[in-house]
Order: sequence, then C-alpha cells, then structure tokens
Amino acid sequence: MDVCDFQRNVTMTGMKPSINELKSLPLAISMGDPCGIGPEIIAALWLSNNPPHAVVVGSRAVMARALAVLANSNKQAEQIKIHGVDFSNAQAMAASVMQVHEPAHLPSDLANLPWGEVSALGGQAAAMCVRSGVAAVQQGLARALVTAPLHKKALALAGEPFPGHTELLQKMASPKGQALLPVRMMLANDELRVVLVSIHVSLREALAAVTLSHVLETIRIAHHSLQRMGMAHPRIAVAGLNPHAGEDGLFGTEEMTVIGPAIQQARAEGIDASGPWAPDTVFMRARQVGKTKGPFDVVVAMYHDQGLIPIKYLGLTEGVNVTLGLPFVRTSPDHGTAFDLAGTGQADPSSLQAACRLALALTST
Amino acid sequence: MDVCDFQRNVTMTGMKPSINELKSLPLAISMGDPCGIGPEIIAALWLSNNPPHAVVVGSRAVMARALAVLANSNKQAEQIKIHGVDFSNAQAMAASVMQVHEPAHLPSDLANLPWGEVSALGGQAAAMCVRSGVAAVQQGLARALVTAPLHKKALALAGEPFPGHTELLQKMASPKGQALLPVRMMLANDELRVVLVSIHVSLREALAAVTLSHVLETIRIAHHSLQRMGMAHPRIAVAGLNPHAGEDGLFGTEEMTVIGPAIQQARAEGIDASGPWAPDTVFMRARQVGKTKGPFDVVVAMYHDQGLIPIKYLGLTEGVNVTLGLPFVRTSPDHGTAFDLAGTGQADPSSLQAACRLALALTST
Repeated sequence: MDVCDFQRNVTMTGMKPSINELKSLPLAISMGDPCGIGPEIIAALWLSNNPPHAVVVGSRAVMARALAVLANSNKQAEQIKIHGVDFSNAQAMAASVMQVHEPAHLPSDLANLPWGEVSALGGQAAAMCVRSGVAAVQQGLARALVTAPLHKKALALAGEPFPGHTELLQKMASPKGQALLPVRMMLANDELRVVLVSIHVSLREALAAVTLSHVLETIRIAHHSLQRMGMAHPRIAVAGLNPHAGEDGLFGTEEMTVIGPAIQQARAEGIDASGPWAPDTVFMRARQVGKTKGPFDVVVAMYHDQGLIPIKYLGLTEGVNVTLGLPFVRTSPDHGTAFDLAGTGQADPSSLQAACRLALALTST
Repeated sequence: MDVCDFQRNVTMTGMKPSINELKSLPLAISMGDPCGIGPEIIAALWLSNNPPHAVVVGSRAVMARALAVLANSNKQAEQIKIHGVDFSNAQAMAASVMQVHEPAHLPSDLANLPWGEVSALGGQAAAMCVRSGVAAVQQGLARALVTAPLHKKALALAGEPFPGHTELLQKMASPKGQALLPVRMMLANDELRVVLVSIHVSLREALAAVTLSHVLETIRIAHHSLQRMGMAHPRIAVAGLNPHAGEDGLFGTEEMTVIGPAIQQARAEGIDASGPWAPDTVFMRARQVGKTKGPFDVVVAMYHDQGLIPIKYLGLTEGVNVTLGLPFVRTSPDHGTAFDLAGTGQADPSSLQAACRLALALTST
C-alpha cells in the first residue's frame, strides 16, 4: 500500500469519500488529557476569527470547564454553546457553537479532576477520545484527525500499552492480524522539517533501531509523503548517527554499514536522498530562512532528540506533528500537556491552529 | 587541583608568571592542518584593525602561501612580513609583522601539499604545532593557546592516538605517570553555552560514558570554570539522555539511576544544578536572546550532538570552543578544516577572532 495515499485509503472499513465529500466533513479534534492544556487550547479555536468546521471528541463537561477558564480573560467565551452530537449528525454550525462528541462510556466525572495532575482516569479518557476520533475518520465521517496532547504517564497508568499517540494510531490503522503499518513522525515548522527513524524509546533502544531496513523505510516514507504533500522531487538529507557522521569510521561505523547503504538503495529507487551528513550541521544547513531555497526539503533524523532539538530550539509556536504512513491524515501540536499551565488560560493555541490548518490542507487536493 | 585555576597552574614545569607578566605574553596560535582553512583564517587576523599580540606556531612557508591567497582579494596582505621567532624572543610588533615560530623538525615541504586533501603529513604537522604551542604556554612563554582546526583523519593517518585536540591537550597537560586530568569541551556563542560529558566517540560509547562519576565531574568542571570566568553562581541545567528525559522511566532509566543522583550530589556540594531536563526543550529554554536573562547560564549535554546541534543551528559565526579543566587557557574556533573552502580565501575568520578575544579575556583578570 502506498503509505501516503490519504484519499484512496481514507476509510479502512467504510465507503471511500470523494475529495469533495471529504472536504465537506468536519475535522475530528480529540481533547487530549482533561487535566492538561488540551481542552483550553481547543476551546480557544472557537474564540478565533475563523473556527474550523470540527467536532471535538471529548467530554462536554470538560470543554465547558475549559470555556469557563477562557472566560476569565475573554467574555466572548461565555457566548460559546456546546452541542452534543454524533459524527453522523454533525454539520457546519455558527462560530458560536462547539459540537462535542462524547465517546460511549466516557467517565462522567472528568471535569472534577484537578488541573495539572497525572491520573489514570485522564489517560483513559484521552485514549478513548483518540480511538473514537480514529473511528470517525475510518468510517468516513470525519475529514482528518487532529489530536490535542495526552500525558504519556497517564496513558501508562490507564493500562494502555502504547507510549503515545503515534503507536496507538499505528495499531488502530493496521489491518487486524497483520504486521503493523510502517509509520513515522514528522515535525514541521516554518523553517525545518524532520522525519524520525524512531521516537518514544530510550536512546539505547533507538540505537538498536538504526537498521538498514528501518532507515530505508524512513527515507521512503518521507519521500512519498512529501510527494503527496505536493513536492515533485523532495530533497532528503539523511543525518548520520555518530559525531561528525562517524568521521570515516573513527567514531562509529553505522554510517558505513547501515545509513550509507540505505541511502544508496533509496537513490537506486529514484529518491533524491543524500548523506549521511554530520548531525551537528545538517539541521543548520536545512533550516529555511526567508524565501531563499536551501539545499534540503527534509532531514531524516536517526532518533527523537536529534530531530526535535533543532525543531524546538527557536521556540517557534507553530510547529506541527504529522504521522506519516497512516491511511488517513493525522496532525497534532508539537507540544505536550503543559500541566504547569493547565487551567490558567495562558496556553498558546498557535500550534494547534497550525495543526488544524495543515490537516485541512492535506485533505484539500 | 582546582581544574580552573588557570593562573596558579599556568606553568606545569616553569615559573608561575604573575597576571601582569601573563598579560604581556603573546598568544600562541597553532596553524592547524596546512591543507585546511587554518592558515588563511589566521592570516586574516593580520588584516583586521587590531591583530592580537600573538605568535603563530606553524610553517613560515604555509603562512606565506596563506597570505598570498588573501592577497588575491586584499592587496594589504602583500604588506605583511613574516618573521621567524622563538617564543623567548617574540615581542610586541607592528601590525604588519606576523611572528611565526616553526617547531623543530617540522617537515619542509608543507606548502606544496594540495589544498583540501587529507594527508598524514598535514596531520603530523598540525600535531607538532599544537605540541609546540602547549610547550610555550607550559614554559610561561605564551599567554594562552588558540588552535586552528586540524583534520581528525589526517591526525589518525599520522599515527596520532588522539581523536582530536582536546584529547591531545589533556594528555600533554596531565602529570606523567598519573591519571589523565578530567577535561571537558565547552562550546559557547552569544546565545548559548554547553559543556559536553563526552565528545569524539561513537554514540554507542557516549551512552556508556553517561556514568554518575562522569556526569558529576562534568557538572563540577562547568561550575568551577564558569566561576573562574566571573560568574559567582552559575545556573547549570543538566540535560537528560533519553526522549522527554525518560518520562519517569518509560523511555530509559539513566535519568533516575545516574543523572538525577549526580545532580543531587552536585547540589549537596552547593552547586546550582537542576534537571534532568527534557533534551528537546532545555536548549531552547537556555537560549539567551537580547538582554533578558534566561533561567540557565549553561547546559550540561550528555553527548556531542545533543549539545552541538543547538549550538550550530543558527549558523552563528562566532562560536568558540574552550577546553575546561586544563591548567592553562585553550580556545579554538567551533568549526573544522573546511577543506572545500581551503585556498579560496573565502573562509570566515570570525570564530577564530572570537576565540582569540575569549583567550585574552580569560587571562586578563
């Protein structure tokens, strides 16, 4: 299966919507951990000039609490009405109406959980909302999934076997009884795009994941996904693993035994991949400032922090996380639950807004 | 020994110069690999408004070739005269005179080596110049050592057992027959300072170097060195090793078993160390923009690329490398030999200039 053919595979179980049908559907926005900033940054979308056509997958009471928080500094929040809906009866609504779909069996006392505390209940609710949002997209009832942040420890406390969103989505999107779909995390902001070979594992495990097949698969997914996003010939920089990309084997050999051969194989397939480049300068070189086109469109990073340190270094507020390889579009803000800010109404919704914009763009053509 | 007591220990073998004597001495600037950009960025110092009082440790013929390269675009370079000197007879000179000390037995045909090629001869010459520069500082004949870049593969081809400058300097500075002095690399630019637990080893070996004693030693060296540089109470952020600093053990345990205890021990010693912080955001938080003081003065990074990716991300041209823990001051530019630029006269001397300024500042009080 072409990992990026969002439209062809947008429904795993239902009828395939045409692109025009897809464009008429609402986004599904999962609320994330009820004790984090997810509910309030979602609520803030309804205070913007142009709220997306979206259904929040979450608790009505939690969303009401979030609106009440925002009302402390913006009285307009008091005007927003919450309508309970199912995806099948959701419709384009006035900006003053927030449609909320409550998953079946969602715990009822979520709005009493204290802000900023890890809880099994919060993790359980967050996971239920993600599952419900995925189901809506898979059934052809939602256009794409945008996920507000969940807390990984709360997820674990709830007994979920998935370290985070990406792994849960991967499991849900994979055909039952078959191998997991290969998916990768891409982080993108206005200056830089990175695709990660591995994500939520220890650095020790991440090292073990730098295999020829993993790296090659990451390059292929990056290539096909960026093509799908409209780039005819994505220029892919592949980072090395070791300092100075191993300096010809002086500080590690993975560049010669694994990464280099993966790049060669990708090139043999017609992919414009280059490297392995020294990790400490490839992100600087790939950074796109202003309109001057740099040498690379994306960097394949060998592990989580190699890619996320440069993505986050400038503190840009509009970074977006995209799961590549799923049969539907899923984006999210590039930050976490920010428990220290939850309930203050101070959290910045820019990244979530950017995630919604990108989800709309990726389902528009 | 106090690892930062530059003045008290500035001579390992000779008489201790007073601070006023030290300030009257020249910097020793080692030329680096003769096939790289080292010689021409050094030569460019003599074209600036205010060349440092310095002696180049290198080949007169190589430095003449570098001046000839610069003369292609700046005729002033033709006016610079090269004087062969020993450190013992070097003196403050007119800006039009470059004093060059040739180490004994330096190969004579270095100026015929092609630009931009790795060679054993280049590596051998670079190492000889570093050794000679260290000797001058240790004998109380030079104020501090500034090193132009060498090529690590050329160094290896020359049979040197040291991966780079830092390890060679560490060996030379350590008392014979005793354990090596603990030294650490600090990278600093206008926005960020990082000190690295390990440097030129594979990432696999870097993981093994994240031990309680190594991390604690790095924190101590960072603390004492920054105090020595004039900060009474350096605020030290310690990065985690794993994604999200392990997220409470979900993705690795080094934060709980190694890094956290090292921070606690440092705090018990009165050091203002904090963490372990999530690696993907600690550098962003430590970045100092404008005059608003951020929460940290320095970040202790667990491995080479964790610290160098953010230091280099903005492509700032005035980054400086400082070896902490030596009994003398050593700085260098934060870039390499740039073989692709060597011989063009296009290389930017800003980082070397900043390295000279910092070496002067660190030996001024």
